[in-house]
Amino acid sequence: MSNGILKGKRGIIFGALDDKSIAWKVAELAQKEGAEIVLTNAPIALRMGTINELAEKTNSIVIPADATSMEDLTNLYEKSMEHLGGKIDFVLHSIGMSVNVRKGKQYYDMNYDWTQKGTDVSATSFHKTIRAAWDLDAMSEWGSILGLSYIASQRVFHTYNDMADNKALLESIARSFGYHYGLRRKVRINTISQSPTLTTAGSGVAGFDGFYKFSDDLSPLGNASANDCAEYCVSLFSDYTKKVTMQNLFHDGGFSNMGMSEQVMETYMKSATGKK
Amino acid sequence: MSNGILKGKRGIIFGALDDKSIAWKVAELAQKEGAEIVLTNAPIALRMGTINELAEKTNSIVIPADATSMEDLTNLYEKSMEHLGGKIDFVLHSIGMSVNVRKGKQYYDMNYDWTQKGTDVSATSFHKTIRAAWDLDAMSEWGSILGLSYIASQRVFHTYNDMADNKALLESIARSFGYHYGLRRKVRINTISQSPTLTTAGSGVAGFDGFYKFSDDLSPLGNASANDCAEYCVSLFSDYTKKVTMQNLFHDGGFSNMGMSEQVMETYMKSATGKK
Amino acid sequence: MSNGILKGKRGIIFGALDDKSIAWKVAELAQKEGAEIVLTNAPIALRMGTINELAEKTNSIVIPADATSMEDLTNLYEKSMEHLGGKIDFVLHSIGMSVNVRKGKQYYDMNYDWTQKGTDVSATSFHKTIRAAWDLDAMSEWGSILGLSYIASQRVFHTYNDMADNKALLESIARSFGYHYGLRRKVRINTISQSPTLTTAGSGVAGFDGFYKFSDDLSPLGNASANDCAEYCVSLFSDYTKKVTMQNLFHDGGFSNMGMSEQVMETYMKSATGKK
Amino acid sequence: MSNGILKGKRGIIFGALDDKSIAWKVAELAQKEGAEIVLTNAPIALRMGTINELAEKTNSIVIPADATSMEDLTNLYEKSMEHLGGKIDFVLHSIGMSVNVRKGKQYYDMNYDWTQKGTDVSATSFHKTIRAAWDLDAMSEWGSILGLSYIASQRVFHTYNDMADNKALLESIARSFGYHYGLRRKVRINTISQSPTLTTAGSGVAGFDGFYKFSDDLSPLGNASANDCAEYCVSLFSDYTKKVTMQNLFHDGGFSNMGMSEQVMETYMKSATGKK
Repeated sequence: MSNGILKGKRGIIFGALDDKSIAWKVAELAQKEGAEIVLTNAPIALRMGTINELAEKTNSIVIPADATSMEDLTNLYEKSMEHLGGKIDFVLHSIGMSVNVRKGKQYYDMNYDWTQKGTDVSATSFHKTIRAAWDLDAMSEWGSILGLSYIASQRVFHTYNDMADNKALLESIARSFGYHYGLRRKVRINTISQSPTLTTAGSGVAGFDGFYKFSDDLSPLGNASANDCAEYCVSLFSDYTKKVTMQNLFHDGGFSNMGMSEQVMETYMKSATGKK
Repeated sequence: MSNGILKGKRGIIFGALDDKSIAWKVAELAQKEGAEIVLTNAPIALRMGTINELAEKTNSIVIPADATSMEDLTNLYEKSMEHLGGKIDFVLHSIGMSVNVRKGKQYYDMNYDWTQKGTDVSATSFHKTIRAAWDLDAMSEWGSILGLSYIASQRVFHTYNDMADNKALLESIARSFGYHYGLRRKVRINTISQSPTLTTAGSGVAGFDGFYKFSDDLSPLGNASANDCAEYCVSLFSDYTKKVTMQNLFHDGGFSNMGMSEQVMETYMKSATGKK
Repeated sequence: MSNGILKGKRGIIFGALDDKSIAWKVAELAQKEGAEIVLTNAPIALRMGTINELAEKTNSIVIPADATSMEDLTNLYEKSMEHLGGKIDFVLHSIGMSVNVRKGKQYYDMNYDWTQKGTDVSATSFHKTIRAAWDLDAMSEWGSILGLSYIASQRVFHTYNDMADNKALLESIARSFGYHYGLRRKVRINTISQSPTLTTAGSGVAGFDGFYKFSDDLSPLGNASANDCAEYCVSLFSDYTKKVTMQNLFHDGGFSNMGMSEQVMETYMKSATGKK
Repeated sequence: MSNGILKGKRGIIFGALDDKSIAWKVAELAQKEGAEIVLTNAPIALRMGTINELAEKTNSIVIPADATSMEDLTNLYEKSMEHLGGKIDFVLHSIGMSVNVRKGKQYYDMNYDWTQKGTDVSATSFHKTIRAAWDLDAMSEWGSILGLSYIASQRVFHTYNDMADNKALLESIARSFGYHYGLRRKVRINTISQSPTLTTAGSGVAGFDGFYKFSDDLSPLGNASANDCAEYCVSLFSDYTKKVTMQNLFHDGGFSNMGMSEQVMETYMKSATGKK
């Protein structure tokens, strides 16, 4: 798909690790749709992934930035505006990590230092990403900032752990900052609540297969893929959606508003045998 | 349980068919908690059920009323106030029926006359129940009116059909009328979104067992029973909850905020085999 | 704006009365974006409005249809497919009317015949619009059906009256039918919850000016206009949003997630003097 | 009011600073309703307030605890169980503080160290409060844990600043931990989303008067007071609400579901003059 709906726009994309990443797909599509972009990620992610390949494909540069560092972020916006030749029209924040999840710590047994580390990386980094732009007045009027969330922010998914709390915080930051940035510069800030996605980060989580399968089965349209998500992100960066702000937008094939389907019930009851 | 928390209060209870009914349990408990009550139901339900037994147990009278008839409802309030010796403090509306569900019509194949009949009985009757009280100024200050809902009003449960739409409408009526009645008389109006419950009405629905089981398995506290619901209703009729209004209150052991649990996932994946 | 994002798509647009109508703007933009469309409205609305002018501008035909009549709707889809040369890719349902509102009946004093008439026209018509397509299998795979809603479906706005209940029902129908149509044909069904809009229909409502003003003042981006709404609708008809379904999407400059702003508070407190 | 609905129950109440505090009212009422309680607060709050007076009135002891310290909390539960003679039936967490708010830092200009301090005190302390009980298995079956929230967690109120994010996090913690504690011990965990309340903490916030007034004017039942809140808390500690868990419960006279009322509109339009 390519209709040039981002023609003339400048964007910054956080979080493209490898070609399974949502951010990777967004970068590719944004460029096809006419945008010029800058890629960024934390130094360690840059080493682990294959972002240079993406930079080449999308004719973009990579500027390393730790999204928990105001200094790095400020440098990122300054360099990006210089490179792209003007203010920024859109930003994708696709960053999240929980040390407790990684290390297999249960929610009721969390290590609070790790919790705070996760909050810094997954949620506060969103505030800082926006705020660095704010301080420099780096966003164009009617610019668009997106974060990626998951429905665990609103309902419990048993292994999602403190990432659920981080996503709730992320969604709140979108609202809180959306008010101020909307008033100041007409910049819109939203989060997409995306289906479980087969990324390198996602599929490493214990129990991911089950979430993916259940979600895919229950959603009338099936799970939204990373490609689907890129298409949706691009629409939210475009001028077609200028008055959408402070929202958490479900992009999930209908999952969020499903309670039970015929097929899922049949599968469930096949093995449910009445004991609890 | 009995602490006299409804001492001196007068109530009207709609919808006690038999001793499995939520309304039946509410009537019993309300009386134990010190209230004097009047029972009511549609003439046909009075014939099918065993409400006289309940009247005896709770030392109350039965006044027939078709809740779709303003005339019947007006008569009900007038007689109730006369019998109970004053204005009404609480009302339970536990009424719902879908002809399409009964006759096995799918949502995409509904008979619109039946749909309208279901809406009249399940939702508009709630408006009329409130409005008959309004017209007579029959509610005491700080009175409490409750309707019973189900989460299908907000998420799709595949066999719930047009009852889902009726419950959405019911919840909206609680808000809309709650505004006016709150201003006029400080009367509060809420709906309880209750777990699937093993009533005569409920358990007749196709696939009820599956809903019940899945819901019970996913809810950390298990499904709320009719007895549990009676306790909750009584608390919402009491003076402990005077500032709660226009709300849809989930009474479901946590189901509404669960996405997935360890146990449900295990059961599901046992029989899910990857095909969709 | 025109990027050809609806190139090759066929659509049906309900409810374009005159050039202030949201549906009018959608029709114009959809055509610019490459779609071929059919216009429709109820016979009486066709007489009152200026739809022929729109038909000329958008190179489309007008097929009259009363959206409460399955016969009319069936005829509409049949003729539209014939005229457009294939199945339908998108449908806009922009229909709503409350006799109680028109006649100044308060919510607590509603005429139930009028209420039912309003429900038929404003909500059940959405079910019928979808169902007529379903019966004929008239939608393409990944087609998109949109209804227009207002936040009064979820919170009380004092003069919105029974339209609030109708909109709650409309949103529920989008979910309920969205499940079935998603499974069957991958068709997505959503509602847009739009800002108060200066249409001929809207601005006739008592107190509209106040709603418009308050909403515009509280929304960080201001109210979304009919033109803005057309842009958003077009994005939701396009292939950029294929996995969004069963949602109620706020398009309101942020209003839905605002509680209070500095400016609104200042204005309010200027004339609020402590009495209630 | 006193019906003995907490007879035989043991509780811990955090956050009673002085006789305007919600926690103060809860402590008084819980004791009247038959509970035996332990009071606690941070050492600095103990010095600033008048908690000893409350201890005398309610025949209870005060055990100092900084709710950000697992050590203090563990000591609190151990001492409380010893003093009260058994496991704990209910806990009220009424703690919140934002350094950014206190120091007048805007949301877009926050000091991140202060933000983290606020999160620790206002939200993570709720996790720790629950977790200390969990580690000691200190809660009785069907026990009840309550936190206090505010609707700013879900909609923006312009001066609420990072407390909005903290409350969003608090509500998420109630859900996340509610799942685990429900399964383990049938303990329910909820938050109450309370009207603006004239406490020493609340009324110190800039612009509080305006929030209080607007909220009181828009709510059909008016704002819920600290006394009202105590009554609601007590009902949620009692056995009448055993199946309510993982919920955020609005206790606000209807505010949360109001969009606009006749009176507020009139007041607003009196001083709104069309400029934005």
